[in-house]
Amino acid sequence: MNGKKKRVYRFDEGNATMRNLLGGKGANLSEMVKMGLPVPPGFVITTEVSLEYYDLGKKMPEGLWEDIEANMRVLEASVGRKFGDAKQPLLVSVRSGARFSMPGMMDTILNLGINDDIVEGLVELMGEKRSAMDAYRRFLQIFGNVAMGMESSEFEKILDEQKINAGVVLDHELGPEDLVELVNKYKELIIEVTGKPFPSDPWTQLREAVIAVFESWNNQRAMDYRNYRGIPHDLGTGVNIQAMVFGNTGQNSGTGVLFTRNPATGENYIYGEYLPNAQGEDVVAGVRTPYPVSQLGESHPVIYEKLMGLAKQLETHYRDVQDVEFTVEQERLYLLQTRGAQRTAAAAVKTAVDMVVEGLITKKESIQRVEPDQLSMLFVPRFDDDDRKRAVSEGELIAVGTPASPGAATGLAVFDPNRAAEAGMRGESVILVRAETTPDDINGILQSVGILTSRGGTTSHAAVVTRGLGKPCIVGTEEIKFARDGSFFGSRGQVIKEGDEISIDGATGEVFKKHITTVAPNLDELNEARQLLSWADEFRTLGVWANADTESDAKRALSMGAEGIGLCRTEHMFLGPERVAVVQRMLLNAAEAENWQSAHGEVDLLSISDSLPEDLPLGVATYYEALGELEKLQVKDFTDILNIMGDRPVIIRLLDAPLHEFLPRYEELVRKSTELKMSNPNDEELQETERLLELLEQSREANPMLGHRGCRLGISFPSVYRMQVKAIMTACCELQLKGQSVQPEIMIPLTSHVNEMVILRERLTKVAKTIQDERGVGVRYKFGTMIEVPRAALTADKLASESDFFSFGTNDLTQTTFGYSRDDAEGKFLRAYIEDGVLPEDPFLTLDAEGVGSLIQIAVEKGRKVKPDLEVGICGEHGGDPASIDFCHRTGLNYVSSSPFRVPVARLAAAQAALRDDK
Amino acid sequence: MNGKKKRVYRFDEGNATMRNLLGGKGANLSEMVKMGLPVPPGFVITTEVSLEYYDLGKKMPEGLWEDIEANMRVLEASVGRKFGDAKQPLLVSVRSGARFSMPGMMDTILNLGINDDIVEGLVELMGEKRSAMDAYRRFLQIFGNVAMGMESSEFEKILDEQKINAGVVLDHELGPEDLVELVNKYKELIIEVTGKPFPSDPWTQLREAVIAVFESWNNQRAMDYRNYRGIPHDLGTGVNIQAMVFGNTGQNSGTGVLFTRNPATGENYIYGEYLPNAQGEDVVAGVRTPYPVSQLGESHPVIYEKLMGLAKQLETHYRDVQDVEFTVEQERLYLLQTRGAQRTAAAAVKTAVDMVVEGLITKKESIQRVEPDQLSMLFVPRFDDDDRKRAVSEGELIAVGTPASPGAATGLAVFDPNRAAEAGMRGESVILVRAETTPDDINGILQSVGILTSRGGTTSHAAVVTRGLGKPCIVGTEEIKFARDGSFFGSRGQVIKEGDEISIDGATGEVFKKHITTVAPNLDELNEARQLLSWADEFRTLGVWANADTESDAKRALSMGAEGIGLCRTEHMFLGPERVAVVQRMLLNAAEAENWQSAHGEVDLLSISDSLPEDLPLGVATYYEALGELEKLQVKDFTDILNIMGDRPVIIRLLDAPLHEFLPRYEELVRKSTELKMSNPNDEELQETERLLELLEQSREANPMLGHRGCRLGISFPSVYRMQVKAIMTACCELQLKGQSVQPEIMIPLTSHVNEMVILRERLTKVAKTIQDERGVGVRYKFGTMIEVPRAALTADKLASESDFFSFGTNDLTQTTFGYSRDDAEGKFLRAYIEDGVLPEDPFLTLDAEGVGSLIQIAVEKGRKVKPDLEVGICGEHGGDPASIDFCHRTGLNYVSSSPFRVPVARLAAAQAALRDDK
Repeated sequence: MNGKKKRVYRFDEGNATMRNLLGGKGANLSEMVKMGLPVPPGFVITTEVSLEYYDLGKKMPEGLWEDIEANMRVLEASVGRKFGDAKQPLLVSVRSGARFSMPGMMDTILNLGINDDIVEGLVELMGEKRSAMDAYRRFLQIFGNVAMGMESSEFEKILDEQKINAGVVLDHELGPEDLVELVNKYKELIIEVTGKPFPSDPWTQLREAVIAVFESWNNQRAMDYRNYRGIPHDLGTGVNIQAMVFGNTGQNSGTGVLFTRNPATGENYIYGEYLPNAQGEDVVAGVRTPYPVSQLGESHPVIYEKLMGLAKQLETHYRDVQDVEFTVEQERLYLLQTRGAQRTAAAAVKTAVDMVVEGLITKKESIQRVEPDQLSMLFVPRFDDDDRKRAVSEGELIAVGTPASPGAATGLAVFDPNRAAEAGMRGESVILVRAETTPDDINGILQSVGILTSRGGTTSHAAVVTRGLGKPCIVGTEEIKFARDGSFFGSRGQVIKEGDEISIDGATGEVFKKHITTVAPNLDELNEARQLLSWADEFRTLGVWANADTESDAKRALSMGAEGIGLCRTEHMFLGPERVAVVQRMLLNAAEAENWQSAHGEVDLLSISDSLPEDLPLGVATYYEALGELEKLQVKDFTDILNIMGDRPVIIRLLDAPLHEFLPRYEELVRKSTELKMSNPNDEELQETERLLELLEQSREANPMLGHRGCRLGISFPSVYRMQVKAIMTACCELQLKGQSVQPEIMIPLTSHVNEMVILRERLTKVAKTIQDERGVGVRYKFGTMIEVPRAALTADKLASESDFFSFGTNDLTQTTFGYSRDDAEGKFLRAYIEDGVLPEDPFLTLDAEGVGSLIQIAVEKGRKVKPDLEVGICGEHGGDPASIDFCHRTGLNYVSSSPFRVPVARLAAAQAALRDDK
Repeated sequence: MNGKKKRVYRFDEGNATMRNLLGGKGANLSEMVKMGLPVPPGFVITTEVSLEYYDLGKKMPEGLWEDIEANMRVLEASVGRKFGDAKQPLLVSVRSGARFSMPGMMDTILNLGINDDIVEGLVELMGEKRSAMDAYRRFLQIFGNVAMGMESSEFEKILDEQKINAGVVLDHELGPEDLVELVNKYKELIIEVTGKPFPSDPWTQLREAVIAVFESWNNQRAMDYRNYRGIPHDLGTGVNIQAMVFGNTGQNSGTGVLFTRNPATGENYIYGEYLPNAQGEDVVAGVRTPYPVSQLGESHPVIYEKLMGLAKQLETHYRDVQDVEFTVEQERLYLLQTRGAQRTAAAAVKTAVDMVVEGLITKKESIQRVEPDQLSMLFVPRFDDDDRKRAVSEGELIAVGTPASPGAATGLAVFDPNRAAEAGMRGESVILVRAETTPDDINGILQSVGILTSRGGTTSHAAVVTRGLGKPCIVGTEEIKFARDGSFFGSRGQVIKEGDEISIDGATGEVFKKHITTVAPNLDELNEARQLLSWADEFRTLGVWANADTESDAKRALSMGAEGIGLCRTEHMFLGPERVAVVQRMLLNAAEAENWQSAHGEVDLLSISDSLPEDLPLGVATYYEALGELEKLQVKDFTDILNIMGDRPVIIRLLDAPLHEFLPRYEELVRKSTELKMSNPNDEELQETERLLELLEQSREANPMLGHRGCRLGISFPSVYRMQVKAIMTACCELQLKGQSVQPEIMIPLTSHVNEMVILRERLTKVAKTIQDERGVGVRYKFGTMIEVPRAALTADKLASESDFFSFGTNDLTQTTFGYSRDDAEGKFLRAYIEDGVLPEDPFLTLDAEGVGSLIQIAVEKGRKVKPDLEVGICGEHGGDPASIDFCHRTGLNYVSSSPFRVPVARLAAAQAALRDDK
């Protein structure tokens, strides 16, 4: 647009900082030239020009061609050959290169500047005919495809026929005459398909190639890739025009790729591959199997030593592991590209830590070198990589579900929780496979090494429980279908019977039939990760707490570096078969008992004595007995957790779950009652079933997610929360009397109106005071609101006046803000929404900053206006998601709370957010 | 607090505008004095003083007593008697009186200034002993109760004994000596209970009485009443001290109450009651039955004529119907109070209209004289008032549920929709009584005169359908319990069998056993209401539209004055047994068919032809056949409605309902399948049931409210919305071709992300264009968003760029903002929340301005910023609620849309909102 802007840069005019203007490839080639490294000369058309091309309605900007011609003249001079000259021909590559690496998405043309005449000169130059003809046929194929819009497969078909005719297997086994024939056939094909001959004029080739690269910026796969990666569409691509060097000119030539450190392990040695007598695409295409680069050391030690030196020089210069392409042409070494190397989680951590130790990078840089998500993989067992690859290639991957809890496991598939529990106790390694799980299944879950469900999302029962337990879990695996009689399940045409061995990876959602070797977390890797995290802790300002419901959760949370417990779900303490039975007795009699109590005055039976009056109605007595039992259990639970956490905060959420989670399934009871009625109408069991059915009918809800739960239950059935606060305070007093310090925070779930807080605060503060007075202990505790529905966020100023802290339950808040029931949505439309781009990402995994996030901002602002020192954090799934953690940092939260296994991720992400903010 | 403030006003110093300072009673007494009417002289202690009393920690402000004494001197002078003087005693009344009328809530003391000595003087003055002693015993009783904190019942007990001893029935039959005895017993009782004698010094009596009135401002029943009515607690009460006149001094004395027009009908004649030889409390207490005031005309024509004149003078002066208390003392007429009269809906409307015609008030005043909610009663049948009273007194009121659709009905209770349909078709008057209703029941509903359910809230199926049909309905009547075998229901110890006659009032929720006479809307009343509404239309700025799903709804909406249809629910067109069957076929095969279609390319089968290709899989063919049938039905539905509405806007919402509303009930199928399996395992019916069960299992949801519905369904199953838009456009084109103008607006429900609008707008605009092109007609239509989830409101700027209008679905928006499932909440905790004051009001009836309202404000602001002429309205239940309408007016909405029967309410409320705003 601005005619005066410099459109073309020679490599020796640019440098690595000019990435935006020259693209990554051009900037790095320029940098290498600046470093004096052996790079074939060339120049770059800037990314701005490609945008100009589109702005002009796909026309080359005026003057651009002249600039290209002028630069070609300089190139000819520096190489000493001439473009389009039949005697001393200069061939060039024309390669795309954008600001962000988009590997394989855009187009590249090699060997450009060749035609029937010129190829003869090339033969002279290369000293042999095969290489020259090979270059020619490669050019025709790639040019036909990229610049003339033909299908690659059409060329491949002819190539295959040619190989069959010649009786050879590999491309490079074709002799010179075969290649001559192939070139002719290619030329005919081009005329046949496009109706015009391929342009033999090298300048026409060059012009069309440049346009083809411009065009490739907006081809479908490039656009899809940018959408997927979130790369903007208005950056444009550079076009690199570079003198060709040829690795396919005999045994003293070749081409290869190296990494300056091992990209799988991070070990500090040069790792790479080399293919003699080949062009770069052969390595990439995997047509021939390359040798380890050390082979080059044996055949050409001088070149090898030089290469090793250059590699280290590049790494030191870029201060990061480099992925380097090189070519040897007749014993001359050229570097064709360098870029930051892709690496595994383990390698990322190791190199990041090593480089600090080596003095190559700072701690801040080290922290920014590792993707937080990668980190969680290091702390759990995983599949042996080779064994997994083998299994995939042998068709043993039978389903992919929703990853719900990371880690890999292998064991016998069992479809029933009781049988799973039995097998587990016999010492067998068992994977429980169910449509979905319920609290009834807990024994089976505890005795299994992993869980696989066909239904449910990442907040389903199975998912939440296993994350707490640190067991691998895959949910919502809709591919697997159970047989009606439950004796097997099928998936992708394969059948798995109970007792067959399967393997699951909770980090990827992959389900395999057969055994796959799992490997434990590597101790060295863990140590390096801990080193990195301790540096992260130096920089982050956001606290990292963990969600933990049990003593062992709490221990794990501490070992992962959690600074507190952001969510202790008391209903998870109600799990386990004998506890569930008690909870059922309590819930089914709650309405009757609370009615009775409110009719008989505000007597709090719990506070009178531990033994109940004798003349209570049955339902009332059952209710209070059940509450009494639960109280004892909870005192122990709370004591254990508070004891572990000491003077770190522990947020205990009072009962929140919808009732039906603890009750028998209605449909099953209907089935049972119908069966009993038909077979044995006078049975006692029938009467019992009918009674249960009647009680269930009273508490059944059309939409339990939005029903009688959380503080609504707490207000209707006052004794439940009283019991819980009594248990918390009893635990605290006992611990303090033993000299242990505690920091309990009592959280009221599902608040939507400030009056709920007013009522419960008054009621429960009284209970807390009574317990403290009885023991003569003063416990410092906080009392706060869980913000899970939009109204709570919108009226946060009111709530703040009654709360010492806010904790955003972003799972439920996302459900109510979108109006999505997560479990229903996942399989029915949410997955399709994300795949089809209706939603940019899964709002249950990454916080929806635009909608849910704006509610959080409103709440924080309103809350802090009323109470500037309000403690604010989040405790939903999002607490372990890096993008969400970045949002929490920017919004000024005090902490995030995630499942224990995500704590390392959160620590690193929080540090990165702080450093990002720093800039 | 400011000592210089005037604390006491003589009646001749005040006037009616000083209501805030003097209280209603004091201000009106002052006004009457100013008008020169016969009011016993007196003075008022201001409302500010009562607040000062509380501010001082319940102490009389310094100087107040001196002010009172000084004013008593003036009073003595003007009456010519002396307070505390045994010869010419002055007695006074001490009465409360606050800014807002709080009838019976605060205290009043009559006959103050009496003791053993003074009563003798009183006998002289009155000329007979009985009246004097009667005044004395009344004073002791009321003073003991109000100023000394004793129970009234203790005095009543002694009074009763005295009457038994004297052998009389009525109080005034007690002779002078009985009364002397009674006075002595009262004095003893006072000493016995309080430990001290009653104060015989009149000045002490006065001081304690004033304090008692101050105290009564904060007694429990006054506080409860203020909470209930939303009256602030910091207004205080005035204290009126007035010379006593005595209506109990023989047959030339008496007391009465009159209304300047009939308060039940509004007819313009004076209506009142009169009791000779009595004090005012006798009339109120109903101890003796008073005569019509006309009786006074016969016994004392001069006094009567004077009273009639004064009454009309007061009405003219106050320009409103007055409720006047008067006393005749020895043929002298006194007025003791005047205030605006309480009146029925009919009377309110008639007087408001009549007074404009009479030139007494302006149209604006007229509009503000009627409570909008009252208005809806006039348009539906109601119980004959006397018959209802009889039924209540005879214990026939057996339950009170949630009023869901106004109107009264009487008929045979039938518990099954099929039997109800049959009986209805036989011409019987039937009330369908069910736990809840489903779309399957529609035939029964259509043939019933009213519906009663034991479950569900005011947005349950029964409620919504009956409001549309204009039939009376009561829901959530939890008192009634069905017998297990369904043959009867019980409530309040009574049993109603199928076929028993019951009566229901959908405006009050009352259920009666037996027949109660219903009366049709009165034509005169309707005409007056229409007159008032036409005036309301002159002032309101907010549009009033109606929700209407059928031709008859639309007609009714127009007749009620609706200016458009704000919500036409297309799923209500899917009701009716044969339609439901088609919808089920469509829904159960949708997933298969849409998968098939997307695998077979984007062919839109619907747009190719009306006959389907022959080789389609069964499910796919069934799906498209069902869609085709529905399309035909919908074309007719839309044609009918659009034809009625002509050039008024009609907002048609595409399918929104959760799927399960149209599907067979899962539990019933489970029961059926279990039964079949046990009785006849090889039955074909079993296989069919099992197949249905399997399909149902796939579409079942844990929380259907938050599930796969609305535009989510529209996106997953594209053919459904395509069919609907095709039907809308076909109807529009056909009507336009016939010269009819139409104004369709297509509404997308349950939007939560702008991409949903982008996708559907593109898809459906294409369909609309195709239909228009085919017919060669250009239809002007709008395309808009229904805002039902918080995220839509929070991202309204985005949505506005893709929408021509917004319509707030405040039912669902309230559910998601609070996190309440309305149907679950109502019975489980919401009712208790409202009763216990956790919530100030039912957010499903009156819009929650603080929470839901703030989302609406955010959305309107963001939306209009992007698109200033965005059409914005609400179409939830709140569209017919006056307080919510006021909110909508203030928030700048274009219209509210309510059910047709609430349209009059909305028109009046909108006018009142505009006038309120005007001030």
